[in-house]
Amino acid sequence: MHAEEDAAVTTGIERGRGLTAWRQIADQIAGQIRAGVLAPGDQLPTEAQLAARFSVNRHTARRALAALASEGMVRAAQGRGTFVEAGPLPYPIGARVRFTENVGRAGHEAGGEMLSARELPAPEALATRLGVAIGSMVVETRTRRFADDVPISVGHSRLPLPRFSGFAVALTESGSITKALGACGVADYRRVSTQISARVATAEEATLLDLAPGRVVLVVEGLNVDEAGAPIQATDAVFAADRVQLTVDS
Amino acid sequence: MHAEEDAAVTTGIERGRGLTAWRQIADQIAGQIRAGVLAPGDQLPTEAQLAARFSVNRHTARRALAALASEGMVRAAQGRGTFVEAGPLPYPIGARVRFTENVGRAGHEAGGEMLSARELPAPEALATRLGVAIGSMVVETRTRRFADDVPISVGHSRLPLPRFSGFAVALTESGSITKALGACGVADYRRVSTQISARVATAEEATLLDLAPGRVVLVVEGLNVDEAGAPIQATDAVFAADRVQLTVDS
Repeated sequence: MHAEEDAAVTTGIERGRGLTAWRQIADQIAGQIRAGVLAPGDQLPTEAQLAARFSVNRHTARRALAALASEGMVRAAQGRGTFVEAGPLPYPIGARVRFTENVGRAGHEAGGEMLSARELPAPEALATRLGVAIGSMVVETRTRRFADDVPISVGHSRLPLPRFSGFAVALTESGSITKALGACGVADYRRVSTQISARVATAEEATLLDLAPGRVVLVVEGLNVDEAGAPIQATDAVFAADRVQLTVDS
Repeated sequence: MHAEEDAAVTTGIERGRGLTAWRQIADQIAGQIRAGVLAPGDQLPTEAQLAARFSVNRHTARRALAALASEGMVRAAQGRGTFVEAGPLPYPIGARVRFTENVGRAGHEAGGEMLSARELPAPEALATRLGVAIGSMVVETRTRRFADDVPISVGHSRLPLPRFSGFAVALTESGSITKALGACGVADYRRVSTQISARVATAEEATLLDLAPGRVVLVVEGLNVDEAGAPIQATDAVFAADRVQLTVDS
């Protein structure tokens, strides 16, 4: 794959054309992405390769790649290279919201990674959502989720204790919230309400999601209930807006 | 209202404190917004008033207001002043999506203004959505919508002709899409699908929505059908993400 891409981006730049060298390089790569010469998910040449090919210094090549990332055309994965962003994944929000199913339906493999877990007393808003007493203990996990190897979302789940005391360990093992809920005896669950807003990603979210500064996240808060209708899980997650389109059917 | 606010923002700045004067002024106003001294919807003092009160030049006062707008704390309404942003309006997305009802339920008065109307042949994607032949004529209107006097969204509606030949005139008169559909004989309609994404507002959208550069919009595309289930209206609208939180109940 690399050999073709390397050829694809080698068309040279014109000095003194009024556009800076990094802008010309970025424009050429952007044109090749739009034309499909570079396909979604393709890896771009490295800074060093671009620098050699366009006869510019690495700083110029780096700036071209950074410009493409800040325009949402490519994703810079730390230590692994730069990749063409794929179109947004359709992500259904309804009575049944399952990350693994939603990602699988779009033809990708879902993955999850637990970043942290802790126990804390529920503040008032959370206690109200979960239908528990203020100050009663909940478990909070933070998870990053992927489609293939692309980070899609990062967010929290908060569940009442002691019912979900096995949740964090099960989530660490499986990476799947549905499986972790199953390990706690929840055979099925459904989403009763979802709130959706959007903002620019924080610096920490941008790092976790391979987003350039200034890129946007969808902020999705949800409440899941068990078969009996009891609230079991309050979630909030930010989704890279370049990678997901939420869909609601009614 | 003005007299109180003027008093509220008069606390002075410290020269040589390490923070620029505009940042100190912005921080003081932000603190008063967070403390509720300046309430949602309140008008801020003008540039000239701020400049006089803090003994700075107008450029400095302008920069303080611009910083607050770029942080999403205030809204600069061209020619009418600067106002404290209210919290986000809950905006239900479901089988029944009605701007006027949604805004009214949140305690605000809905308004609408038609920006433009034209007729055009339907491109393939639109024709498929509306269930009409490619190239058959549709009417396209562009509308800006308000909660009280605050711009909330700007977007397009596209409807098949000749059935909706009276739509644009009716929309101009009422400002309400539901009323304009009623004028075309649609007694009731429902939303069958909605797609939600987000991005930074374009310069034109920012102007229409009183948004500072870099602020975010929710992009909402929908398809409405009539009582018989026939597609009648394809919509796309951008909502100021600072002013709306979409909600989905299931």
